[in-house]
Amino acid sequence: MLHEAPAASPATPPAAPSAGVVTALEALRLELGGDVLQVGPGLDVGRLGKDYALQSPSGAAPLAIARPGEVAQVAQILHCCNAHRIPVVPQGGMTGLAGGAVPLVPALLLSLERLRSIEEIDVDAGTMTVQAGVTLAEVQAAAESRGLFFPLDLGGRSAQIGGNAATNAGGNRVVRYGMMRALVLGLEAVLADGSVISSLGKVLKNNAGYDLKHLFIGSEGTLGVITRLVLRLQPKPASTATALCAVPSYAEALALLQRLRAGLGGQLAAFELMWPAFYHLATTLAERQPPIDEGHGLYVLVEALGSDPGRDAAQFESVIAAALDAGVVADAVVAQSVAQARSLWEIREGSGAFRKHHSPQLPFDVSVATSDIGAFVEDCNARLRARWPLAKILYLGHAADGNIHISIKLDEQAGSARQMDDVVYAAVRDWKGSVSGEHGIGACKRDYLGHSRSEAEIRLMRTLKAALDPAGILNPGKVLPPDDGVSAGV
Amino acid sequence: MLHEAPAASPATPPAAPSAGVVTALEALRLELGGDVLQVGPGLDVGRLGKDYALQSPSGAAPLAIARPGEVAQVAQILHCCNAHRIPVVPQGGMTGLAGGAVPLVPALLLSLERLRSIEEIDVDAGTMTVQAGVTLAEVQAAAESRGLFFPLDLGGRSAQIGGNAATNAGGNRVVRYGMMRALVLGLEAVLADGSVISSLGKVLKNNAGYDLKHLFIGSEGTLGVITRLVLRLQPKPASTATALCAVPSYAEALALLQRLRAGLGGQLAAFELMWPAFYHLATTLAERQPPIDEGHGLYVLVEALGSDPGRDAAQFESVIAAALDAGVVADAVVAQSVAQARSLWEIREGSGAFRKHHSPQLPFDVSVATSDIGAFVEDCNARLRARWPLAKILYLGHAADGNIHISIKLDEQAGSARQMDDVVYAAVRDWKGSVSGEHGIGACKRDYLGHSRSEAEIRLMRTLKAALDPAGILNPGKVLPPDDGVSAGV
Repeated sequence: MLHEAPAASPATPPAAPSAGVVTALEALRLELGGDVLQVGPGLDVGRLGKDYALQSPSGAAPLAIARPGEVAQVAQILHCCNAHRIPVVPQGGMTGLAGGAVPLVPALLLSLERLRSIEEIDVDAGTMTVQAGVTLAEVQAAAESRGLFFPLDLGGRSAQIGGNAATNAGGNRVVRYGMMRALVLGLEAVLADGSVISSLGKVLKNNAGYDLKHLFIGSEGTLGVITRLVLRLQPKPASTATALCAVPSYAEALALLQRLRAGLGGQLAAFELMWPAFYHLATTLAERQPPIDEGHGLYVLVEALGSDPGRDAAQFESVIAAALDAGVVADAVVAQSVAQARSLWEIREGSGAFRKHHSPQLPFDVSVATSDIGAFVEDCNARLRARWPLAKILYLGHAADGNIHISIKLDEQAGSARQMDDVVYAAVRDWKGSVSGEHGIGACKRDYLGHSRSEAEIRLMRTLKAALDPAGILNPGKVLPPDDGVSAGV
Repeated sequence: MLHEAPAASPATPPAAPSAGVVTALEALRLELGGDVLQVGPGLDVGRLGKDYALQSPSGAAPLAIARPGEVAQVAQILHCCNAHRIPVVPQGGMTGLAGGAVPLVPALLLSLERLRSIEEIDVDAGTMTVQAGVTLAEVQAAAESRGLFFPLDLGGRSAQIGGNAATNAGGNRVVRYGMMRALVLGLEAVLADGSVISSLGKVLKNNAGYDLKHLFIGSEGTLGVITRLVLRLQPKPASTATALCAVPSYAEALALLQRLRAGLGGQLAAFELMWPAFYHLATTLAERQPPIDEGHGLYVLVEALGSDPGRDAAQFESVIAAALDAGVVADAVVAQSVAQARSLWEIREGSGAFRKHHSPQLPFDVSVATSDIGAFVEDCNARLRARWPLAKILYLGHAADGNIHISIKLDEQAGSARQMDDVVYAAVRDWKGSVSGEHGIGACKRDYLGHSRSEAEIRLMRTLKAALDPAGILNPGKVLPPDDGVSAGV
């Protein structure tokens, strides 16, 4: 078997729920109505049973499925589950890549899909107040409709904005705008005991006590359930400049990055590295004419977002031209139209090519210091090749923020997911990197958390978990590795 | 009496320390050496007794003063103090404005001033790893020496960088670069029990478990003692454009802000509002020729930081000119030299004028939604005038991020600090603002925390405090209002 699901916590009873739990859920169903709460057994899980990650575990059969339409109902549900020790798995768009929203134990699935109101767009303050179940695509469109811009962008735009916050989503524009954490001004969450923490301020400057929102952003539903957000919007960029550059090696990629940072005055919005095997897959194998010949050391997709279409393009081209003159860039193509820019992005996204030539695949989402990326990729590749000389391995990444994606085709040339995890995460540990740059830990990487975080850090995480969710009902088994029952939930 | 210090916690014994405490401190002194730990009574507190805030309480006489030169010594000190329930007050440059580093009870003063090594500057990654006691001025200069830029800037540049992080410092460039929280990639802190939490990663993208650094940033030394930081550096701006604009009212100031945001492509770095009484003080009263006549509704100091000196200036001037043509701006002066820019900033900083004509003063640092600033200032002013018709009150602020500073001259026309606090913070509460935009809560504002945060939020803050500092030794009496001994420390 190629994919090994994380084992459910040993304390988990696989048996039928206790009479007390059945009675409590039935009473809750009568309070909330059958459209808000369905109680099992035999529930149709549909899309709530699985996320986008191939190696995610198959979800356990749920005890109940809740689809609250109001924050007060979320509070009621959590209050009841906490009192009766019923595990709760918060769920958004199910586009995650780490098994974070897949139930490992029989649980109440808490889908935020009906909390889908855009409550306010404040153009002066540059903010949008939304409920958690609004999709990323809807948030982007709503900002655009008011002449503003919500910069978070990633492949799964049917993700819910609450899930984007719970997982601190990243994507392609982090180098300019930051991760989701930087785009959230205010946040409302419901704690395990049902109390509602409403910190929905709209200001950038607020130092009135502890900044509680950061507890919930990126903790993957293990410390509370995010119900509403105040998002920070940006001015809509008036110009986009896109180029594909070939560089001899990672040293020149770094030099190009410094030139772009210095020359574009903060307008650099994407700096996407593609190693040769990936470039080959996304062009020649995908029957797409390579815009620059194959054979270079590395390819970089560069994008700048500016405010003055005429002058920005000239400035962008002059920075690229200077890099060519200096020998930092070996060859370059600057997009002359929106369609050309789109086709350069299609290469980076590997549209079609992945599915056709590199599927099923095991994806990694790691990060190391930007200065170490080149050497890390070489080292990691050598370790993988030593074990699986013929495996098909691709490297690409958002290099300006240290994030590297590795994709290994799962075929007879490769090892098991667990074996390859072991090799890649050992390399990450040795380079003092992070086992998750942007996808999160979820269920898939919890056994490797200690590769990137010290015992003291993990102990502090457990302290927080125990303080905020003493009964361990919230998303049990996620993020933190099992600790003999201390934090692994029910 | 104009200034009323917050009362020390009623549980605090004002008497001599117990024999156990004396013995423990003496043993610690023998371990660490007399240069690291001085034990009282009769210690010369020097600059560690008082911060920059006039209304800060007079510090209690310390039990001991520690000046550790290594992180391991910080850990030893905290471990000992935790075991013996000795209050610890972490101290940086003592430039705070909220009494956060002033001891309210007899305590060990833990000065970070000897942790002053700049450990690494990584130009490729754009990071600087520093110990907590390095001053802001030193960090700025070290970045500059490598062709990079650390954007945090504020009046008290002798502040220590650890204190900047502990208080989540703001300043003038937040609109572009964010507050201190956004400038910290990694952080090391020592917990109350002496365990060292080292999260010194250098990457922008890191989702490996809870992001612990945010617990320590902005919690004013009540949850842990920050010992090291990895700072995010920026490319050094190649151009600076500065202008002073007069606008008829706050509505036009907002319209100007939108134009600058849209027209400057993210280069807007400061948008500083000055209401007429402040402008009068900083120009005419200070014997400085007003660059724009008095009599306008509001004055705005605008600064943009760019990458191309020639083109940025033209772009900046064209945005200002368009705002003049549209009637948004009534009059404007664009600085034509560094000296002119400097003299415009001197107006905003009120250099000299404050000391001479508006001292002593009671400063406020509040924030409300950017769209509400104009109406908030009117309402707050009306409330103050209703009580003290002749008080001298100035308003200025970093409006793009919602932050407003109010300064009331403490003379016979004004009320007591407590009375005026009551009026201003009631207005902040009614406008759903924050009683601290950037200075923090410290000792001075803890009684007003509930004006900006709900009971549920404060309860969660107490939960965090109890989880991380169960003995309540860390900076007792700060941030959280007393709660019958639950979190108020020793």
